[in-house]
Amino acid sequence: MHEFELIGRLTPLLPTNDFVVLGAGDDCAVLDLGDPTSHTLFKTDAVVEGIHFLPNADPEAVGHKAIARCLSDVAAMGGLATAAVVTLALPPGRDPKWSEALYRGLCRTAARHQVAVVGGETTTNPGQSLLSVAVLGRVQRGRAVLRSGAKAGDAILVSGELGGSLAGRHLEFEPRLAEGSWLATTFRPHAMIDLSDGLAGDLRHLLTASGGLGAEIHAAALPISRAARLRAREGDLAKPAIVAALTDGEDFELLFTIASNDAVRVMDGWRSQFPGTRISCIGRVTAGPEILLRDARGIRPMPRGGYEHFSGNE
Amino acid sequence: MHEFELIGRLTPLLPTNDFVVLGAGDDCAVLDLGDPTSHTLFKTDAVVEGIHFLPNADPEAVGHKAIARCLSDVAAMGGLATAAVVTLALPPGRDPKWSEALYRGLCRTAARHQVAVVGGETTTNPGQSLLSVAVLGRVQRGRAVLRSGAKAGDAILVSGELGGSLAGRHLEFEPRLAEGSWLATTFRPHAMIDLSDGLAGDLRHLLTASGGLGAEIHAAALPISRAARLRAREGDLAKPAIVAALTDGEDFELLFTIASNDAVRVMDGWRSQFPGTRISCIGRVTAGPEILLRDARGIRPMPRGGYEHFSGNE
Repeated sequence: MHEFELIGRLTPLLPTNDFVVLGAGDDCAVLDLGDPTSHTLFKTDAVVEGIHFLPNADPEAVGHKAIARCLSDVAAMGGLATAAVVTLALPPGRDPKWSEALYRGLCRTAARHQVAVVGGETTTNPGQSLLSVAVLGRVQRGRAVLRSGAKAGDAILVSGELGGSLAGRHLEFEPRLAEGSWLATTFRPHAMIDLSDGLAGDLRHLLTASGGLGAEIHAAALPISRAARLRAREGDLAKPAIVAALTDGEDFELLFTIASNDAVRVMDGWRSQFPGTRISCIGRVTAGPEILLRDARGIRPMPRGGYEHFSGNE
Repeated sequence: MHEFELIGRLTPLLPTNDFVVLGAGDDCAVLDLGDPTSHTLFKTDAVVEGIHFLPNADPEAVGHKAIARCLSDVAAMGGLATAAVVTLALPPGRDPKWSEALYRGLCRTAARHQVAVVGGETTTNPGQSLLSVAVLGRVQRGRAVLRSGAKAGDAILVSGELGGSLAGRHLEFEPRLAEGSWLATTFRPHAMIDLSDGLAGDLRHLLTASGGLGAEIHAAALPISRAARLRAREGDLAKPAIVAALTDGEDFELLFTIASNDAVRVMDGWRSQFPGTRISCIGRVTAGPEILLRDARGIRPMPRGGYEHFSGNE
């Protein structure tokens, strides 16, 4: 059973209460904990050796990735992160220097984004290490950007460059907290998601959450990464760079939709605020439900399929 | 390297910020997220198959235990829990019915304590299942009960009965949220901790956090569980019931200290509020640093050693 099926069966079981503004299913949950100006964001995620990182990966980069994935989810709600807790599950006999290096990487990334790390548990996990992180964030009341608000006619924008993340970027990406918070504060994006499963899959998640809308994507507008282009030129493992940009996972860029009237202002503002990070308008939301890809040869359905982990198990 | 040593080496690395009232090292972190009346509690914990539960354990009980451990930490701060997020890491091919049963148990316990479950991730963990839970709680500003506030002369009290938890109670215990919150709201306990490593070990943690105090414990006052007494009568695995009460882990009872003048009022109030749950005054805090055990034969140092997991690895 696929992860999404299992979650679909479990979600109806989850209890709620008056603190919950938005429960499971978006990038973060949204809670009202009584602050008159802010809502609280809450998210957990885990990385597993052999699946999200290889055993010989730099432990500082692993620690970075473990928290940065959660921070990217906070960014996708338009929030800033405040605090994190960590559980490190280790095989017996793992060198404590490895754990220290992992924490060093995690804490350096937390500090760079003004996030406090307020709890660190350790336990045993025979076979491989696993690092679970939970983060809290904050967003102005009523300003959290959900997946579910896209409207037909919206412009679809994406930050950064897409594809080829497994060549290295998946261990080094910087979560787009400043960018997401600036967007949510300055504009009113209708819907936002961070790209973890690949553009094709995550765009589908956003459009499904928005009531089954569709989209038309312009292939020529896709910001294809250098890593994806390089890999497309290499031997046996080659795949067309555009397929990599559409289906490779772990880009951790922001994908959002906004009223088409606002798109140019957003892109102008972005380029002056964040000159080092590309912003691209890649298409528009349609009444759907198909997602179509337009290129020089015409228009066709978006290829299905998304991110495959190293093991292909998740 | 022991868990506490590793944590001792990692803790200085952890970044902090203005939201942090109390960082890592107590049962929960305490945060000020802007609510004018409450502080927020934050905690994460994990259970691992083969260590915290056996592979043939009832999955509903495993789900219960995974969240109840975190709720017990919230109780030990004098708080009530508000929301939880979950990561379930599963070996490939695990029957989805198992995961559903696990979630059913977890959600039933959450609902019984008015806790919302607002996120559920799944990932792959080859070899054995692992369930990581993070919880948020709330406590009146300034009323969180830390480990570090014990004073020489305090009475030492403990809820429930101790020892023999692995015979079954470790999968069924009910976190003492109502009791802990009532204590913190009605009285001013000086220090509190929940018993996960065993009374001897956790009392030491509390006294160390309180500046290196000591204690004198009356063996005759220890509330020894029926499971510990039964096991003491059985063959090869037998150990004296009092040793079980002092060193068995996973009691998940509340151990707290309070001004000795208040002890009788606390016990009277407890017995009328919670008639089904024992409360025992087991000794007093001393200037220390020794922890002494007094019994019919005289007085001697408290035996060292605490909880041993099934695998003895953690």
